[in-house]
Amino acid sequence: MKIGVFDSGLGGLTAVRELIKIAPGVDIVYLGDTGRVPYGSKSRETVITYSEQAVKWLINRGVEAIIIACGTVSSVALERLESPVPMFGVVGATAYRAVECTNNGKIGVIATEATIRSKAYEREILRLNKDFEITSRSCPLFVPLVENGRISADDKIVESIIEDHLRDIKSAGVDTLLLGCTHYPLLSDAISRYMGRVTFIDAGREAARSCVKELGLNQSGDFGEFKCYVTDFVDDFQAQASVFIGDAIISSVEKIQL
Amino acid sequence: MKIGVFDSGLGGLTAVRELIKIAPGVDIVYLGDTGRVPYGSKSRETVITYSEQAVKWLINRGVEAIIIACGTVSSVALERLESPVPMFGVVGATAYRAVECTNNGKIGVIATEATIRSKAYEREILRLNKDFEITSRSCPLFVPLVENGRISADDKIVESIIEDHLRDIKSAGVDTLLLGCTHYPLLSDAISRYMGRVTFIDAGREAARSCVKELGLNQSGDFGEFKCYVTDFVDDFQAQASVFIGDAIISSVEKIQL
Repeated sequence: MKIGVFDSGLGGLTAVRELIKIAPGVDIVYLGDTGRVPYGSKSRETVITYSEQAVKWLINRGVEAIIIACGTVSSVALERLESPVPMFGVVGATAYRAVECTNNGKIGVIATEATIRSKAYEREILRLNKDFEITSRSCPLFVPLVENGRISADDKIVESIIEDHLRDIKSAGVDTLLLGCTHYPLLSDAISRYMGRVTFIDAGREAARSCVKELGLNQSGDFGEFKCYVTDFVDDFQAQASVFIGDAIISSVEKIQL
Repeated sequence: MKIGVFDSGLGGLTAVRELIKIAPGVDIVYLGDTGRVPYGSKSRETVITYSEQAVKWLINRGVEAIIIACGTVSSVALERLESPVPMFGVVGATAYRAVECTNNGKIGVIATEATIRSKAYEREILRLNKDFEITSRSCPLFVPLVENGRISADDKIVESIIEDHLRDIKSAGVDTLLLGCTHYPLLSDAISRYMGRVTFIDAGREAARSCVKELGLNQSGDFGEFKCYVTDFVDDFQAQASVFIGDAIISSVEKIQL
């Protein structure tokens, strides 16, 4: 089975990490649109155009399913994308998991501006339980932090940005925090320190899990191929990728044009 | 006279602001590649490809000169760009001005990662005076700050990021600080508060001045046309643009594809 994984940048590698863990036998084609990253501050129309190009490219590579491992694409473009193979976004899976996890019915949702503006997570959670109380907040400086490797809980800048972005979410007394952008799990330690005891819902991980479950993929076996494609190839790709992917072995990395 | 002004996003509007002030009669065609912004974290090759497309587009619009109002493009791509009309980047003009302004021969240079990596400003300043002492630093979180409207000197996040990014520049005792990215002048107040008495060199302003001077443009007259083109059109374009351009009147704004 060959699975395509698409993200605007490298954050979607968090979904690949989970996929390799729970269904090691699949072949993975990862596509990161690093030449046009970030999507989260761009218009809906532009995100749709870029995503259509990416999905088309993945289908031409022969993938049999696609994980949209990008909160922004899943929220603002997924319903507009056409594909002959099944697609798994992060919204449905994470909303479901958040509803399962909360005890006090108070859920925090953090994501990019485009995602929060779309209210996609909110709508999906309320569809599952209309009595839940949701506090949403865009966190526009989290992606720049992660992309610059500033993720330590001891970093003064990280601390002050988290305090600024999450103040309202903390005051709301949420017990579950949905990380609606695949970059955010990298900041878990620092967010934990500020928020105290909350359950994190990781968008990339949940999308990978729902794909494996829905397709009934084999959860054991030898490691498959993991090919990586990007639209801009930066010098320190391996270093940057390893932040998200850990020590998984990338079979090849290639620059392509969409 | 019709002048093209190109930037990866809206920061280049700081050059337009100066251009309108000192040569009001010119017609201006502004092109901001907002659909692929930022350039500063992308590879040299990609920045060159994007810039070639932009310059070609401007020439097809009939501009008679082009201001490359983007520190990253000026530093890493300008020498590779071909154009039948004169092009004015920010590097030469700002380096010249910095050398003119310093009293103690100690100059700070701040810009995006791609620009600092290129050492373009450093090389240009040392070519003018090889005895000057230059302290350079990339400031990767400044563009995200400005793009999110976080520019107040009283903003705690702004304060902590400035302190983090400019610590070495401050210790070096520079008396002149070259703002090598057209977004940075928006942070002048906040940077001033941290740095104390230093002279700022504004990349957009200097590029506009050098263009007007070299072409001997008329420094008075009625206002010309000012047309704006972007590759992504966000909802709050006018609000975002006014941060850079003040109350200048934009004749029209249109979304185009490069």
